[in-house]
Amino acid sequence: MPDTISTTISPEGSLEILSQQEVERLHDTSRSGLHDLLRNCSLAVLNCGNLTDDGLALLETYRDFDIEVLQQDRGVRLKITNAPAEAFVDGKMIRGIREHLSAVLRDIVYVYNEIQTRHRFDLQTAEGTTNAVFHILRKAGTLKPGRDPSLVVCWGGHSISREEYDYTKSVGYHLGLRELDICTGCGPGAMKGPMKGANVAHAKQRRSQGRYLGVSEPGIIAAEAPNPIVNELVVMPDIEKRLEAFVRLGHGILVFPGGVGTAEEILYLLGILLHPDNTDMELPVILTGPASAADYFKRIDEFLVYTLGEEVRRHYRIIVDDPVEVARAMRVDIDRVAEYRRSRQDAFYYNWRLTVARNFQETFEPTHEAMASLALHREQPVHELAANLRRAFSGIVAGNVKELGLRAIEAHGPFRLHAEPELMARLDELLSSFVDQGRMKLAGDYVPCYTLG
Amino acid sequence: MPDTISTTISPEGSLEILSQQEVERLHDTSRSGLHDLLRNCSLAVLNCGNLTDDGLALLETYRDFDIEVLQQDRGVRLKITNAPAEAFVDGKMIRGIREHLSAVLRDIVYVYNEIQTRHRFDLQTAEGTTNAVFHILRKAGTLKPGRDPSLVVCWGGHSISREEYDYTKSVGYHLGLRELDICTGCGPGAMKGPMKGANVAHAKQRRSQGRYLGVSEPGIIAAEAPNPIVNELVVMPDIEKRLEAFVRLGHGILVFPGGVGTAEEILYLLGILLHPDNTDMELPVILTGPASAADYFKRIDEFLVYTLGEEVRRHYRIIVDDPVEVARAMRVDIDRVAEYRRSRQDAFYYNWRLTVARNFQETFEPTHEAMASLALHREQPVHELAANLRRAFSGIVAGNVKELGLRAIEAHGPFRLHAEPELMARLDELLSSFVDQGRMKLAGDYVPCYTLG
Amino acid sequence: MPDTISTTISPEGSLEILSQQEVERLHDTSRSGLHDLLRNCSLAVLNCGNLTDDGLALLETYRDFDIEVLQQDRGVRLKITNAPAEAFVDGKMIRGIREHLSAVLRDIVYVYNEIQTRHRFDLQTAEGTTNAVFHILRKAGTLKPGRDPSLVVCWGGHSISREEYDYTKSVGYHLGLRELDICTGCGPGAMKGPMKGANVAHAKQRRSQGRYLGVSEPGIIAAEAPNPIVNELVVMPDIEKRLEAFVRLGHGILVFPGGVGTAEEILYLLGILLHPDNTDMELPVILTGPASAADYFKRIDEFLVYTLGEEVRRHYRIIVDDPVEVARAMRVDIDRVAEYRRSRQDAFYYNWRLTVARNFQETFEPTHEAMASLALHREQPVHELAANLRRAFSGIVAGNVKELGLRAIEAHGPFRLHAEPELMARLDELLSSFVDQGRMKLAGDYVPCYTLG
Amino acid sequence: MPDTISTTISPEGSLEILSQQEVERLHDTSRSGLHDLLRNCSLAVLNCGNLTDDGLALLETYRDFDIEVLQQDRGVRLKITNAPAEAFVDGKMIRGIREHLSAVLRDIVYVYNEIQTRHRFDLQTAEGTTNAVFHILRKAGTLKPGRDPSLVVCWGGHSISREEYDYTKSVGYHLGLRELDICTGCGPGAMKGPMKGANVAHAKQRRSQGRYLGVSEPGIIAAEAPNPIVNELVVMPDIEKRLEAFVRLGHGILVFPGGVGTAEEILYLLGILLHPDNTDMELPVILTGPASAADYFKRIDEFLVYTLGEEVRRHYRIIVDDPVEVARAMRVDIDRVAEYRRSRQDAFYYNWRLTVARNFQETFEPTHEAMASLALHREQPVHELAANLRRAFSGIVAGNVKELGLRAIEAHGPFRLHAEPELMARLDELLSSFVDQGRMKLAGDYVPCYTLG
Repeated sequence: MPDTISTTISPEGSLEILSQQEVERLHDTSRSGLHDLLRNCSLAVLNCGNLTDDGLALLETYRDFDIEVLQQDRGVRLKITNAPAEAFVDGKMIRGIREHLSAVLRDIVYVYNEIQTRHRFDLQTAEGTTNAVFHILRKAGTLKPGRDPSLVVCWGGHSISREEYDYTKSVGYHLGLRELDICTGCGPGAMKGPMKGANVAHAKQRRSQGRYLGVSEPGIIAAEAPNPIVNELVVMPDIEKRLEAFVRLGHGILVFPGGVGTAEEILYLLGILLHPDNTDMELPVILTGPASAADYFKRIDEFLVYTLGEEVRRHYRIIVDDPVEVARAMRVDIDRVAEYRRSRQDAFYYNWRLTVARNFQETFEPTHEAMASLALHREQPVHELAANLRRAFSGIVAGNVKELGLRAIEAHGPFRLHAEPELMARLDELLSSFVDQGRMKLAGDYVPCYTLG
Repeated sequence: MPDTISTTISPEGSLEILSQQEVERLHDTSRSGLHDLLRNCSLAVLNCGNLTDDGLALLETYRDFDIEVLQQDRGVRLKITNAPAEAFVDGKMIRGIREHLSAVLRDIVYVYNEIQTRHRFDLQTAEGTTNAVFHILRKAGTLKPGRDPSLVVCWGGHSISREEYDYTKSVGYHLGLRELDICTGCGPGAMKGPMKGANVAHAKQRRSQGRYLGVSEPGIIAAEAPNPIVNELVVMPDIEKRLEAFVRLGHGILVFPGGVGTAEEILYLLGILLHPDNTDMELPVILTGPASAADYFKRIDEFLVYTLGEEVRRHYRIIVDDPVEVARAMRVDIDRVAEYRRSRQDAFYYNWRLTVARNFQETFEPTHEAMASLALHREQPVHELAANLRRAFSGIVAGNVKELGLRAIEAHGPFRLHAEPELMARLDELLSSFVDQGRMKLAGDYVPCYTLG
Repeated sequence: MPDTISTTISPEGSLEILSQQEVERLHDTSRSGLHDLLRNCSLAVLNCGNLTDDGLALLETYRDFDIEVLQQDRGVRLKITNAPAEAFVDGKMIRGIREHLSAVLRDIVYVYNEIQTRHRFDLQTAEGTTNAVFHILRKAGTLKPGRDPSLVVCWGGHSISREEYDYTKSVGYHLGLRELDICTGCGPGAMKGPMKGANVAHAKQRRSQGRYLGVSEPGIIAAEAPNPIVNELVVMPDIEKRLEAFVRLGHGILVFPGGVGTAEEILYLLGILLHPDNTDMELPVILTGPASAADYFKRIDEFLVYTLGEEVRRHYRIIVDDPVEVARAMRVDIDRVAEYRRSRQDAFYYNWRLTVARNFQETFEPTHEAMASLALHREQPVHELAANLRRAFSGIVAGNVKELGLRAIEAHGPFRLHAEPELMARLDELLSSFVDQGRMKLAGDYVPCYTLG
Repeated sequence: MPDTISTTISPEGSLEILSQQEVERLHDTSRSGLHDLLRNCSLAVLNCGNLTDDGLALLETYRDFDIEVLQQDRGVRLKITNAPAEAFVDGKMIRGIREHLSAVLRDIVYVYNEIQTRHRFDLQTAEGTTNAVFHILRKAGTLKPGRDPSLVVCWGGHSISREEYDYTKSVGYHLGLRELDICTGCGPGAMKGPMKGANVAHAKQRRSQGRYLGVSEPGIIAAEAPNPIVNELVVMPDIEKRLEAFVRLGHGILVFPGGVGTAEEILYLLGILLHPDNTDMELPVILTGPASAADYFKRIDEFLVYTLGEEVRRHYRIIVDDPVEVARAMRVDIDRVAEYRRSRQDAFYYNWRLTVARNFQETFEPTHEAMASLALHREQPVHELAANLRRAFSGIVAGNVKELGLRAIEAHGPFRLHAEPELMARLDELLSSFVDQGRMKLAGDYVPCYTLG
């Protein structure tokens, strides 16, 4: 049995001034169908000290954990039962974690009340969806006017080698020295390294307002808990809105080595950048890793060229084993982004101008049926293929680490994917290499959650 | 022809981060039926340098004034045409006025979109109405957690003598020396004096976070434009919500000499405090003025005792000609309010616990018919009579200075009020004394907008 | 007997971290020969609520007042006995006044320990004196890097008419609207009006960092106590260093109507600007007052042209009855000063480049003998004559309001000044006009402290 | 040849507002005998990226490095020639390093002008010395009123194993989680680990005002350059004042494993705590390291008991392999220190009450003669023996890493120490163990700089 602590705390910041109705609604939330969602996300946040990507095991370990919203005249209090002891210091919750808990509560309530219950936005349209993403981010205080572009989105695996991890830290350090901020999906590995590196560099540069922004979603947060260094946390309602948040918030994107999750992100990003409306969009993308990752990026590059065409190379650069060069290039590129936005009177804090096609916005439920019927062939426009490949990878991520996916695989066996022969061969090769390199899961032998055929 | 200036400005603060839909909506607002409302309120704010309480004359003088919301990718801009030159210094708008303009825009849009169009609150219920008031105030940033009670609501006439004005300034000064803040209804006279006095005292006490809060409503803002010292401005949708805002925000209430508007406020306040649910409520009320106003308060006191009973005296004190004593007493009382709220875990920033009966919340449209049918007799519960007297005074205020009221009187002649004989006599006496003392209007001879009979 | 209060307080700010030796020294200071100096200056500061320019009467009224520095391990405390009750609110000293007390202590101790006892600066040289002035001002925190030029020195009488006072307030208001700050010699009249006006304007412009800088000296502080709005106070050791502080700190100089003190300041300023080294110096000077002061400035102007030559007019402008124009012109001129300093890499916070000749730096003790032997004729270089006239006026100020001067006149009768006939006639005319206009003293009939012959 | 950069920069902070004389003096400083001192310290600070403890080699490597103070009307500029490129990012000096350079300049100038040239303090007395230490620290802005006790002084070796380094980091992390700050002597190893750990913990606790205070001295700074995380740097004039700074600033002291330098610090500290005047002084001391260091502390403990008596154990605790317990105990002890100081009205920022005997203040020049004549026997009061042992260790540190010591050893061979037989045996054993464990030098084989006999 792990050490646990039970206590009652006040939430932080934006939950301070609530109306009596809002307090009641929060109170109800914690008793309604949302209770499980709140409980699972809260547990993930509280568990940040323990390394795991197995959401089911986590829930199992802290079976007695619970969180309840208490109503008081002056506001709300959170009653927490049997929480992981690591979230506390001498019985007092670490402030960073307390902020994360409040962020989780804020986002779940806002999303479920304003967006899902009240239907403030028409999520069937591109415009409505983009607006919903904007409102969630604004509510979270993530849109900061008056700051120059500085946000580097870092993608990459949660399960990477020590060498790769140290490389991501070094890149983060050199980004931080150049006054750049970090946004990741939360979690360990390539999502944590850049933040740790940047935090040290910001201390050296006396940059007290450094941003370490984590963008998560309920399905992944258990597997990728936010490190307490994250000083802004947003929980988007689903994976597609999370991806849209990344590309509209970020001023540049770095991709470190990773597994299927990273592949999903790359396909999403390039599928969007290939859209004709985005032809002249300034959004720098750099793929980078240590020398040992050179082969990894070669494979990715070949797969992208095969599936999306030679043209795709216009949208990214690969830099191997040179953290200083990566940081320098990103700094130059982001200055160019600032120039671009300024010349068009675009906001710095949200990239309205980027076009995200509907097939990248629609939520994809990775059921066995949906996975089996994905059209994986080259007889379709490249951005369609990109969207379908993105869905395929997304489904595998779910089968690997997400609660619902894990349960579906448990019940029905692996997903079955169908593709045209050569694409299948290349896909197989790519996925196998992820397995061989241990990029699928943190611990234990990997049993694939998919079959190709 | 007055000097005018045309220019385009950026709004301040909360309007900074808007979604494209919000910008569009604002843009449309300024072209829709709300355009007149926006135009009139904006002109009032811009006209702060010129003393007038004649909204019609103001609109007449600046007939060519206009304001338009321009849409840009990055946010909104305000295009202003033929604005009063006094709002500018060397062609640049005074920052305080720019903030007021933005506040006007914010409140009109919020109220009309969220509250009226979307029906977020059930305004037919006490709870819904109180919640709406809360949300408007929170949106305006007026609810500040973490501050100890310090807000003194100051009521009194806009048309008062120099001696009375100097007295309000002196009281404000001594309140300010005691670290108290000022909330008024905006406008000249007793609404401006306390702020000016407190501003000097805050400078002496190095209180850089002093609050000068103005709570207005569209009907009155033209006649009572916010002085630029006001550093927080809220435009409530109607007079009843404005009154509710005062009593839920304020930690203590001061009443200076005034006319029918002040009488309306006193009746509103005492009608509420006499409600059985509010028996143990701590809300200090002090009536005060210079020696020359002693008689004025004697009449008010007599009228209150006659109409509401001896019991009413439990809820206020009268202090004549002693600004230091007023300030000292208010400081002591407000410390007691803090104690009271703390012991009940009530918020400091909004008095949820105060009961406001529905007949004080329902909006009253002062048509000739409505005025004529008001039940003004003592054969009803005191709080009913208080509510009806409040309505009667409210109608006379409209007939004196508000655009709609002025136009109604122009068209149909004076309002006709019916009351039982002795009450009528006393009412007549009170109103006549206001006329005699010049408390009805700022300039010119006063032609009563009502007849009693 | 006036109301008094006795209490013990902690000083503010720079006196917080003291070594044990420093605490002891302060303690000794308050018991040594400096005790009288400290006592008199402290009383002046505490008496700010009462209008007087009679230092002797003040000391007489508060005969029992005393101040003592107490030594504690952690720092110092000030024990105050029988202080004017106006300095307190409900028994607690007004914070602005507490800061002034601390400033008095700081400056007296610094000047007497570092400058007079330790001889850190060679006060016999121009460079040493200018350095001493610099160090006193720096110690006081008055030199603020990183701020653009904005400091307008305002000179003028302490005894002026209500009309003139309102004019100074209006000018201060329009300076404040243009983001300019005010520096005066402390005291009532033209020294207080501009600060009050600017304070209101700064509130309207939301300029929370507005500066209201008072520069005093021990001889004058009793007669010209700092208004608590003064948020930076420096007590220079003598009148000459105070004048040098003004011209090195200020970015522009405004002269309102005044008496001999103002005449002294004008002669000092123009004597310096006429120095050949200062030919190209940018230091805007504007003389201004209401319409009724037109004649006053005409006389001053004629006297200056007669004594210093036509050339002198190059250094000032006279603007009558136009506060907006004064403020606008000063804003433009100060922007030019910024340009000038920037182009020469000069500091904004201290005008090192200005040459102040030794005869303007040497302290002048206005004994009967010294006054009688002043060379007041035109057979000398203009800047010599300016220096001597400055001394003559300085002596008369002492005879009018300073403790030592008043005692000397009591003992030996009026000062006797000798001048060549026409100069004497013009001087007589000027001084008589000051007397006639009531500019010599605040209250009572004025008995001249000088004779001409 | 290493990469170098030449540039001209502005210093930071306290050097901003200087008089012309001060600028000149600085300018002269950089050309005078102090130039070498300034150059060597500056090079050390700029070299922070490269790990070395060999001051001579450093000077050799950057033979062409130079620093010059340039005089400008507005202030000073630093001209830097051939500086290590690691101090720069894309040609711009890292801000933390720029601050360190300014701190070096400030301290050298202040110490040599105010303390050595002007003789402001009588360094022959305990009181004068303690005052000088106070003034240097105050000048550096290190004494911060209004903060609760939180400063943990961490001592330990610069040359320690990876395991020990990770342990110091972990302790720092757990101190940081408990809102404690770190003060060390700068440099690598046990001086850097706790700061890095605390920096991460402070980020998690959102402690933006965390202090990482480095206290160095000219002789050691080259060997122990401040890591840029150090956000306050003070260069004390000699080793004895540096030690006094540690014990007067610190609220608790942690000792990690180390070599002779650490032994010197322990002897200094315990020699002072054994002074009768300090009997009831609250100053918590904890010796700690990983499990592998258990034997190390056992030896130290035995040596201390043998030389200073059983009594000495009252003043420290040894905690092995438990970072959480160390941090928890320190937090509790420091809360007790706060209580102690409060009850005596002592300042939190400087421990005036601690008695430091003269023989711990007198500077010790480790010449061959001085080393040879140290009285190392038990026929003297324990605090005398502690003082002499402290000197012996101090001399060995100089012989190991300081420029002057290294040159002396080069010229005359190893120091010769004389001690009574058993003490000699124990000393030999202790020193040999340091050599065996590689604690004497960072790199290369260690050739002892001393002989015992």
